[in-house]
Amino acid sequence: MTATRSSDRLPDGREIYYYGEAPILADPSDGPSAGHWTPDRSELRWDPLMEEWVIVAPHRRRRAAATGALCPLCPTRGDDLTEIPAARYDVAVFENRFPALSGPWTADFAPVGPLPRSAAAAGRCEVISYSSEHDVTPALLPAARLVTVIEALADRTAELGAMPGVQYVFCFENHGAEVGATVSHAHGQVYAYPFVPPRIARMRDAARHSAARGAGCLFCEVQRQEAAGSRVVERGDHWTAFVPYAARWPYEIHLYPRRHLPDLAALTPAERAELAQLYGSVLRRLAGLPGGPLPYMALWIQAPVTEDREVFHLHLQIFTDRAGTGGPKRLAAGELGAGVFVSEVDPERAAEELRAVRTSAGLE
Amino acid sequence: MTATRSSDRLPDGREIYYYGEAPILADPSDGPSAGHWTPDRSELRWDPLMEEWVIVAPHRRRRAAATGALCPLCPTRGDDLTEIPAARYDVAVFENRFPALSGPWTADFAPVGPLPRSAAAAGRCEVISYSSEHDVTPALLPAARLVTVIEALADRTAELGAMPGVQYVFCFENHGAEVGATVSHAHGQVYAYPFVPPRIARMRDAARHSAARGAGCLFCEVQRQEAAGSRVVERGDHWTAFVPYAARWPYEIHLYPRRHLPDLAALTPAERAELAQLYGSVLRRLAGLPGGPLPYMALWIQAPVTEDREVFHLHLQIFTDRAGTGGPKRLAAGELGAGVFVSEVDPERAAEELRAVRTSAGLE
Repeated sequence: MTATRSSDRLPDGREIYYYGEAPILADPSDGPSAGHWTPDRSELRWDPLMEEWVIVAPHRRRRAAATGALCPLCPTRGDDLTEIPAARYDVAVFENRFPALSGPWTADFAPVGPLPRSAAAAGRCEVISYSSEHDVTPALLPAARLVTVIEALADRTAELGAMPGVQYVFCFENHGAEVGATVSHAHGQVYAYPFVPPRIARMRDAARHSAARGAGCLFCEVQRQEAAGSRVVERGDHWTAFVPYAARWPYEIHLYPRRHLPDLAALTPAERAELAQLYGSVLRRLAGLPGGPLPYMALWIQAPVTEDREVFHLHLQIFTDRAGTGGPKRLAAGELGAGVFVSEVDPERAAEELRAVRTSAGLE
Repeated sequence: MTATRSSDRLPDGREIYYYGEAPILADPSDGPSAGHWTPDRSELRWDPLMEEWVIVAPHRRRRAAATGALCPLCPTRGDDLTEIPAARYDVAVFENRFPALSGPWTADFAPVGPLPRSAAAAGRCEVISYSSEHDVTPALLPAARLVTVIEALADRTAELGAMPGVQYVFCFENHGAEVGATVSHAHGQVYAYPFVPPRIARMRDAARHSAARGAGCLFCEVQRQEAAGSRVVERGDHWTAFVPYAARWPYEIHLYPRRHLPDLAALTPAERAELAQLYGSVLRRLAGLPGGPLPYMALWIQAPVTEDREVFHLHLQIFTDRAGTGGPKRLAAGELGAGVFVSEVDPERAAEELRAVRTSAGLE
């Protein structure tokens, strides 16, 4: 990691970390305090039909009421107390005040035994702010800042992954009010789950099947196919960005490292630097589409913490739920009830449109 | 089946069926014609990471442009040609003009072989209109009409299930523009898939696991638990309506037949009659919630056509994506990226609220 890191505690006891290209300009008066923050804990309930855990978190409804006029990710200035005590920062990570997952792991998550099955929703939820500036979007951040974001996510992945009971660290970004972001300040989130989430488990199973067939790494095979095809959006020395063959969303882009590696922590400095450039460039392509900037989700797909690390292959999935023309893609009964996506966009054409967007560099 | 059935062809050659409590009042001048309708065919593309088929159907974008001022489900009157030639009808079913799935089955759907894998999107999509009246909602239909709807769905399930290559018949309802319904006239849809859809396959796997553990029918076990618990919404002689223990949505209701049976076609007349009553009553509870009538989806979960019929157990899942207060539940990266639902509603409280809604009978 080239970024510096310092840690602190919020007045209520939650942890906060600063990552930066430059030394942190935190106000030393905001030093560690003796807060005793105890979040309302969610409940995990086992859905026996889908064999999945559902997080029941009624306390999270208070989020909306808790959001005042002040942006919680802007630096604290004078008496305007936000979530972040520092007067200026590059990247800040802190514990979510209304976490879906929190506290130590106590339960047995094996899906057996009599119904109904319940457990405390152990784990941890963090928020990562990408800048102390309120009005900059992730697409416009300089590559150096995106390197710091990536390094912070790699650090969080390693640190949360080492906590007892954590099975998966999921880093993601919901960008735009239309996709549920309650705060417009550029930020992402990190969820540490006490189990391997179902969608990740599906990919793990597929990767296992490929290995069992003697076909090697499934993700490497997919990348070989895609790199030679007509859906490539951008190509670097270490990474390839493409619209996947079976894209579900109006615009969907996957960004794969050429080298087979499990997670963000395993990237070399050269791979991180190019990832930051391509990540920004892909976001600017999305922002530059007709009707843009479009809301999007960015998902960092990493290996589970302990199991199946060798069959997994880090990649980034980015998609928007709307086409340039028309409203959002609605998930209806076909998608939500049967689980079968109907895409109304031709993936090859989507790739063509994305390639055609002019991307200037970020604010260097 | 107590409903009468007659069939016809639309001018472009698509099939249409009328089901009715009373004899059908179709205009005999709208007899079979020599149309040669050939839909644009969708493509199935295999997503190797999720091991799922995705339907790629760019032609469906033309739907919006094709919807004129005329409601396509109202009866044709004079020169106002709608999708339905009859001057009056009880229930009508016809082939969707912009089908996601259509035509004969030709491919091998086994998920093996080199990438990328593609197949013609075989199958069939039908629309079922519940009434020739434009302004009546499903919640307000008399129980006798809902019996006819149920009998029509049972008939479609049997008929489509007998088509070569069809593996699953999925009946569902998207109600409300907010959940993607492009037409407000009360209606449902029937999709005949050439494979068992992923969400159904998950339930099938769970049911197989239960049987393998010697625990018997998983759905029977769930129903025993729920019927004895605090989340029952309504109870009949043959059916139980309850909020499931691990509900994902703000209001979610499952309706199970007490008897172990695979699909709608297996219901006795008494079971059908009570189902119609409870279905209507549950919809009226949803409509009567604060902020209602709420948009909803209704999913008829039936056994696959050929496999695993004995482990499956018919039931109806109904949910709305919004709570009485506040906007819709948004699916964010946690749900769409990791597959882990976070529910902000307490299932026991949701059941209490649903029980408290006064339901008058439908328009008998």
